[in-house]
This record gives sequence, structure tokens and C-alpha cells, in this order.
Amino acid sequence: VEHYPYSAYRRTKSDDPRLCVRVGDRLLDLAETAKRQGFDRIDLLDQSNLNPMMKEGRVTWRAIEDEIRGWVEAGSDELIPIVDVELVMPFAVADYIDFYASEHHARNLARILRPGQPELQPNWLHQPVGYHGRAGTIVVSGTPVVRPKGNIHLEGAIAPRPTTKLDVEVEVGFVVGVPSERGRAVPIDKFVDHVFGVVLVNDWSARDIQAFETVPLGPFLGKSFQTSISPWVVPLSALETARIPVPSNSTELSPYLHEPEPWGLDISLELEVNGEVVSRPPYKAMHWSPAQMLAHLTVNGASIRTGDLYASGTVSGPQPDEVGSLIERWGNERFLQDGDEVVIRGRAGEVDLGEVRGRVEPAR
Amino acid sequence: VEHYPYSAYRRTKSDDPRLCVRVGDRLLDLAETAKRQGFDRIDLLDQSNLNPMMKEGRVTWRAIEDEIRGWVEAGSDELIPIVDVELVMPFAVADYIDFYASEHHARNLARILRPGQPELQPNWLHQPVGYHGRAGTIVVSGTPVVRPKGNIHLEGAIAPRPTTKLDVEVEVGFVVGVPSERGRAVPIDKFVDHVFGVVLVNDWSARDIQAFETVPLGPFLGKSFQTSISPWVVPLSALETARIPVPSNSTELSPYLHEPEPWGLDISLELEVNGEVVSRPPYKAMHWSPAQMLAHLTVNGASIRTGDLYASGTVSGPQPDEVGSLIERWGNERFLQDGDEVVIRGRAGEVDLGEVRGRVEPAR
Repeated sequence: VEHYPYSAYRRTKSDDPRLCVRVGDRLLDLAETAKRQGFDRIDLLDQSNLNPMMKEGRVTWRAIEDEIRGWVEAGSDELIPIVDVELVMPFAVADYIDFYASEHHARNLARILRPGQPELQPNWLHQPVGYHGRAGTIVVSGTPVVRPKGNIHLEGAIAPRPTTKLDVEVEVGFVVGVPSERGRAVPIDKFVDHVFGVVLVNDWSARDIQAFETVPLGPFLGKSFQTSISPWVVPLSALETARIPVPSNSTELSPYLHEPEPWGLDISLELEVNGEVVSRPPYKAMHWSPAQMLAHLTVNGASIRTGDLYASGTVSGPQPDEVGSLIERWGNERFLQDGDEVVIRGRAGEVDLGEVRGRVEPAR
Repeated sequence: VEHYPYSAYRRTKSDDPRLCVRVGDRLLDLAETAKRQGFDRIDLLDQSNLNPMMKEGRVTWRAIEDEIRGWVEAGSDELIPIVDVELVMPFAVADYIDFYASEHHARNLARILRPGQPELQPNWLHQPVGYHGRAGTIVVSGTPVVRPKGNIHLEGAIAPRPTTKLDVEVEVGFVVGVPSERGRAVPIDKFVDHVFGVVLVNDWSARDIQAFETVPLGPFLGKSFQTSISPWVVPLSALETARIPVPSNSTELSPYLHEPEPWGLDISLELEVNGEVVSRPPYKAMHWSPAQMLAHLTVNGASIRTGDLYASGTVSGPQPDEVGSLIERWGNERFLQDGDEVVIRGRAGEVDLGEVRGRVEPAR
């Protein structure tokens, strides 16, 4: 069964965005096709982003996917080359949450940043640790990143400077469709009822700004300047064959984190800098599944909304060429220079997750 | 000159919210009055929240305030008793940021939670430390708070339990009107061009959930279940006479944090539990001003959006009965019980900031 990733596009800057699916290197305009085919839920497709459709839930998602499959298989002369359009943000972000779900990444960073101290905090093996990030600076692939400034502690002095440690984090993000009620946890087996799909995420990071600010309230300006996502939202249904158990471990988990069925994911990622692949992070090495993340972030009764994005945290595998950040790959030796271009790609078997791309612009 | 705080209200649950200002214990419906008076910017007032008006900027804000002043002073038979309506969220929250700007609070918490360790981190005196919170669980005064559950480390065991350390934090929040461009810092002297007004904030906190999760990424589930705000947004112009310098200190600040004119605020706060005033936090004791907070949160090029809310962090003064949280007032001896009701009130001279109220409901 084929699955078609969703996005939004426009032909010129002055056009309103329109929804589409990707078919190879071309796209199918959803509202136009729905109108021609007399589809009865055109109201969900004649929109500038996916939020109205994502809110509807699994029955409607499946019905629309079936419909689209029929349209594509019947053939269409109406496909538009992707190179002729601009892809834009496919959904409106509500809240943004970032987890820290790779044990390899957590241990690598601890060894680099806090040598001699315990690599994992006491909470890390008991729950997916995460924090809230800035939703308003999430942008679509292709958007340049301006080198951020901030107070940096350097040679005994604290002063605002452009970061000299601009890094990336290779992540996978999960997009919430169906909201939940405040005061009620979302049980782990309801993951598929709430989460619509998956994007690739580049969580740009300024390591020197982050280092000075991060204790005790966590990352803030070292991350909030920009987070980039792929334009394509791959529906969760497309990842059925990529499902695997998360790596086994001996920690006794709270019942709300017990997975009734596995939601680990076998996704192969690729980090490219200036045309050279520098790492191939394996998502299958992640300690926590996205179903566990959702159960955790709502266990306190916090509600979720259509458009919430929660990211996995940096994906790092056990090998030096499987890490998801440059500080893990190159230590403190080398970070991003102005003009450098970073591309993250992802693939789950036959399913192409597309790419998230961005070039570094000088500080202003 | 009189100033009228803004809110939104409805007569029944099925009505769309309508904008209003408070005049004593009654309210004036803005769209109805604007229509009757033939006001030419009725498009900004015939709305369900303040965002369209807040986006416009200072010239329009002042023009609307002048207009409203004229309407009220001319007298109106159309005033509606506030007790007859339901006040709802006055604006749509974009991002939510919480600072930590009281030195007394930072030192008090350090003494309670990390005895024997340094009370202030090396960054604290150099910049306003903050983090992102959950925008989607910000609710209006009167909304009950459901006692949250989460993994708690108790007597050697880690298990999900209802919090037994439910606390409050008395804060003041600043509401962004005019957005900024990504990649450009907002200079400190542009504070008044971007911030529309002020609300009271109760940052409900579960101290035991927070304690287990907070290292290294900061507060998450210990805060995200609910944050309550006052229904009234007091325009910044109403606080002109409350402006004072922040307390002097000897730390050499980065230029972007130098205040050209003072934006400390002399606001008196009151924390009431079950009808008894337990503390009177003085906002004038805050170390960082809201103009400094805005300059800091954008210095890295992070953009702000209409509806962003940034809160001051717990307001605590130097005296035991001036603290803004129960853990500072009562140590670990006593926290909120089911059924307890908390009210936070604020006043800046003649300017009444209203109240934020909430009752504790049992865990579900």
C-alpha cells in the first residue's frame, strides 16, 4: 500500500498556501482534485494548513488516505513539479516539546560537558525527560538560520557575542492531530488516536550560549532562535512496517509507560554538511518510543492540542559515525561556519521522509 | 487620567466571547459601544479576543484608550454587572515564557532545595534566567486546577502518584502585542512598542514532580498541568506612575540589558488561601525589569508574536510574609489540599490589576 506525505505549497509569495501530497518528484493539489472528484470532505482539504484535517481523527485520516490513493492510482495529468513551487509550513504549531530520548546522546554529551560526573541523571531511565521549546520560531526546510548572539562566558569575561559553537541536532518530530482534555492523561495505547504523523527536525543549537544559561532552568536562548522541520508530514500509518520494540532494558517502569505494542521505529537518518554525509543516526537505537513520550507529557493532566509538535531529541547510535550532533562527531574542534549548509534526510524502508535543509547566515 | 483594563466575556456558554473594559464592578461592551458611537476601528473591537487590537501598535492602542475614556466619561446606561457574565481568556496565547527574576525567591528556593550549595548560579546576576512553559494549558481565573500526577521519588521508590506538594507561584505576566522579525533582537528601549499590557499569573507547581524531573532540562510536568491568569489585561500605559528603577546592584551588565529609563514596577501583590491573606509580595523587589526580560529573550534573534506571554517568575520580597510561594512561606510543612481556594490580587497605586482565582480539585 502506498502512502503519500502531506505538505502545503504556493506558486508565488502572494498566493495563499494550498494542501498537497507528494507523488515522486511532483505534487497533487488536494483541494483541486477533491473538487474535480466530488469528494465530500473538501472542507478539510481546501485549507492553508493541515490542522483542520489533523483535528478530525483516525477514521477520517484513513478515509482521506484511501481517497488520495485512488486519485493517484487512477492517474492524473494535474501533477505539479515540486521544483516549480515553494513548500511552506504544513501545519500551525501549537506547543513545541523536545525530548532527550537517546541514551547514547545523553551519555556522549555528559562525557563532553561534565566529565567525571554521572552520565545519566537518576530520572533518565525512569521517564522520557523533556522540556518546552519556542513554537514561534519553528520554520520550514530551506529557511536560512541567522547565527545567534547571546551572553557567552569566554576567557573569564561574560559578554554578548555571536556563537562560535553553532551546532545541529538530528531529530524526528511527532505531530498531534486530535486534542485531549485538560485534567486527563492520554493512556499509552491511545497514541495512534492522537498523533497524525512524523516530520524531520533540525534543532539548531548554540553550545556556548546554552552552556552559560542552562542551569537550573534548562535550554532557552541556545535553542529558541530557530528550529527547522521538513515540509512533509508522513502519516503515522505509513510507518506500520517500521515498528520495532525499543531496546530492552532492566529498569522497572511506571505502568503508564508500559507499551502494549511496540512503537520504536526503524528510521535511517543522514546528516550532511556541505554535501558530505558526516553521520548516519539510527532511530531504532532510541530508548523511548513516541507513544511513551505522549503518555509522559500528559500523565500530569496537561492537555494536548492540534498542532503540538514533540521531537525525540538528538538521535545518536552507538558508533562515532552514528551521532546526531556535530559536538558528538567532532568534539569542540569544529562547528558550523557562515555559509555552511546542513541537510538531514530520513527513510523508513521504502518510505521517504524527505529532508530538512538550512544554510548559515552571518550574525546581524 | 483613568485607564480601563480589557477582557473578554460571554453571557452564556454558547455565546461567542466579546471584548469589554472594566468600569468599577461593571463592564462596557466594546463592539456595541463602538457601533453606537460610529468608531472607525470597530474591526479591532468586534473580536473574540484582544489579539487583532494588540497587533496594531502603540498609536492605535492610545487612540482606542482615548476613545474608550470618552465613552465612559460621557456616561452610559449600557454597563453590564460583571457578576452577570462569565469572563473568558482575553487573548490567545502564542508562546509562554517564565522568568526567575526575584533574587529573594531564587535564594529562598536554593536554601530549601539545595542546602549548602551556592544560592545563585553564575549566570543569575548577568541575565534574566528563564525557560519556556506550556501555552496550551494557560487558563482564565476561576478555572479549577486538577491535582496532577507524575513520577515521584518517595521513600526510595519511584512511582506515579498524585502530588502531595501542590504549590502556587505569585507572578506578573507581560503580554506581547506587536511581533518582531526573526533574526533581529528587540532593543531594550523598544519594550513599550511591543508590550501591550499586564496580567496576574498563578504558576501552579507540583514540587515533588518538579524535584524528580528538573535536572538537567528544567521544569516540565511539575508546571505544565495548568497556569492561571487574571481575566483583565491592564494596558502598560496605566502603569506609568508605578515605574521605578530596579534595585541597584554591582554587576556589570551586557549593553543590551542597560535600561535607558526605569521599568521596575511598584505593584503590591496579595496571596490569599481559603480567605486568609498569607503573604504580600512586593513586585518592586524584582531584580530584573520586564524591559530587560524582553531584550534578553530576543537577543539571540528569536522573534516574538502577538499573544506571547512572559511571566516574571515568583515575586518574593525580603520578609517571610512577602514571599510568593507556599514552600517559601511554610517550608515543606504544608501544601494545598483538595478544596483549597487560592486568590492572587494586585494593585499599583490606584490601578487595580484584578485577581486570579482557582480551587483545587482531587486527582483523577
